[in-house]
Amino acid sequence: MSERITIALDAMGGDAAPGIVVDGADIARERYPHVDFLVFGRAADVEPLLARKKQLQAVTTFVHTDSVVSPDDKPSIALRSGRASSMRLAINAVHDGDAKGVVSAGNTGALMAMSKFVLKTLPGVSRPAIASYFPTLKGESVMLDLGANLSCDADNLVDFAVMGSAFARSVLGIMEPSYGLLNVGSEEKKGPEHLHEASSILRSVDLPGAFHGFVEGDDIGKGTVDVIVTDGFTGNVALKTAEGTAKLINQFVRESFKSSLLASLGYLLARSAIKKLRVRVDPRRYNGAMFLGLNGIAVKSHGGTDALGFANAIGVAVDLYQQGIIEKIEAGIATLQRDPPKAKIATG
Amino acid sequence: MSERITIALDAMGGDAAPGIVVDGADIARERYPHVDFLVFGRAADVEPLLARKKQLQAVTTFVHTDSVVSPDDKPSIALRSGRASSMRLAINAVHDGDAKGVVSAGNTGALMAMSKFVLKTLPGVSRPAIASYFPTLKGESVMLDLGANLSCDADNLVDFAVMGSAFARSVLGIMEPSYGLLNVGSEEKKGPEHLHEASSILRSVDLPGAFHGFVEGDDIGKGTVDVIVTDGFTGNVALKTAEGTAKLINQFVRESFKSSLLASLGYLLARSAIKKLRVRVDPRRYNGAMFLGLNGIAVKSHGGTDALGFANAIGVAVDLYQQGIIEKIEAGIATLQRDPPKAKIATG
Repeated sequence: MSERITIALDAMGGDAAPGIVVDGADIARERYPHVDFLVFGRAADVEPLLARKKQLQAVTTFVHTDSVVSPDDKPSIALRSGRASSMRLAINAVHDGDAKGVVSAGNTGALMAMSKFVLKTLPGVSRPAIASYFPTLKGESVMLDLGANLSCDADNLVDFAVMGSAFARSVLGIMEPSYGLLNVGSEEKKGPEHLHEASSILRSVDLPGAFHGFVEGDDIGKGTVDVIVTDGFTGNVALKTAEGTAKLINQFVRESFKSSLLASLGYLLARSAIKKLRVRVDPRRYNGAMFLGLNGIAVKSHGGTDALGFANAIGVAVDLYQQGIIEKIEAGIATLQRDPPKAKIATG
Repeated sequence: MSERITIALDAMGGDAAPGIVVDGADIARERYPHVDFLVFGRAADVEPLLARKKQLQAVTTFVHTDSVVSPDDKPSIALRSGRASSMRLAINAVHDGDAKGVVSAGNTGALMAMSKFVLKTLPGVSRPAIASYFPTLKGESVMLDLGANLSCDADNLVDFAVMGSAFARSVLGIMEPSYGLLNVGSEEKKGPEHLHEASSILRSVDLPGAFHGFVEGDDIGKGTVDVIVTDGFTGNVALKTAEGTAKLINQFVRESFKSSLLASLGYLLARSAIKKLRVRVDPRRYNGAMFLGLNGIAVKSHGGTDALGFANAIGVAVDLYQQGIIEKIEAGIATLQRDPPKAKIATG
């Protein structure tokens, strides 16, 4: 039997909160019978929903707060005026040892700012990153950073490689993950200087898995490497471009099936196969952006997700804790053997 | 009747050159009866192919050269030692007025370096950009830069907006193109400083079409704007990510149809519709990366393309000339009304 663990939930974050949070927790309760929930939100909104889920209620501690971080709040504002918000209290619960991880579908910038402020970055890590995983031709890959750090230097990217490798081993179950730096060409001389510097560091250190070198945008879908390392600007654009292209092609496929009577009939016959395809690329399967590099587990669910997606984000938090992501990242950072003064600057 | 024009072709560039070049020119000859060809390459390789295409031969002037730019040549090497290469002679033909545009499927970096050296950038344009267009939910859009300039300042991006707008009007037939800056969020405060600066310039100048503001990665597939403006690093990653994702989803769809007997039968019925879909997203339809901002028309065909794709790249060169892309860019740059000293620095 697994040790019982508690996950803190921000009930008020997300387009359809608190409904998706409560329903998502109820799905996660069935999947993870050893998980308790510590739920923060407005009693008037949340308690009636919980009252209808007796089994969930039995494993849930609910804490009322009137304060909520709005989706439009700037991170700095949320940090200052959201000290009693459901989001902040859920993060505090991780810091205080009352929960092993926090999940919120709320304002990403606010969640990152608060998590960083409350949980702090791990020693030796200069900046936390946002990571997410997605389907590829070969299975699943993870990419980071997705927007926490718009521009990055070589050391930041090396940290991200450490964190991404730990994530691949913890959640994707890939014991020797390959990792690559996203660039405009795979040749060694291509691209900007800080990528060459990061590449040369990654060649010299002994991280679990294998450094592949540079990868290009089309390597993301190919699954050339298990971990794609890039700055937050490029990663954010690449992930959203991939999402947009997937939607475009799906729409083209749908239109094709509607374009003639024969095609419609063909669609009817192939329907169950096409449904399986939808499941395969269902964004809810890949819901949950992980904040890596913090001294605590924080998972950001997509704001527009439904209960199933939220349950999956809870699952990611459970996996991250049970697989010891933080210890894996600490061990990886230790292998970098940075000079102490440099490490000091990097953590400052 | 259209004025007769000549297009210069580098017969030796591309994985399957010179075959695809000669066959591509023959397809283009049928489509554009008013076009003559000036073809540069090794006589021993090219002349036998031309001899088999009597109608093409009739509108073609062939010039022999032994020198060829190799796909692995660094741009600086190609520039120095490729002065008699088929690529260089084809570019020279545009500079000398012997051709209205040049098309090559050879080494991209060499083609850009030589084109920039021979044709020069247009007055007021600081840096030329590589542009390409692709299908979206709403039709077609163009994106630039795709890799000529890895990092860009605000003025570079403004230039690209001018060039992209001219391209959309010339080749895509969109008279009032909308254009946007690729960023990590659509809100005005998101992203790095140079994007804010570019945005504020674009709001203040009077370019044809409408400035939409910031767009995100998923707006590329949606077709939110007709022209997507970004630096060469981000644009290169985004375009390749989109290509990779399209291949991934296509592969998933193929596998779905093979997953059961019913699905296979469904595929048979829907086959002609699926074929139409393939035509719709056929990369050969979108073959041809345009070098914009130069004082002459240069089109880079994909190195791995076939004759049909090469013919399409020739078509793009013909369109660019006939729609007066260079005059449109000059007019756009003039509307920027930059202070003369600034313009001087920018062109330096």
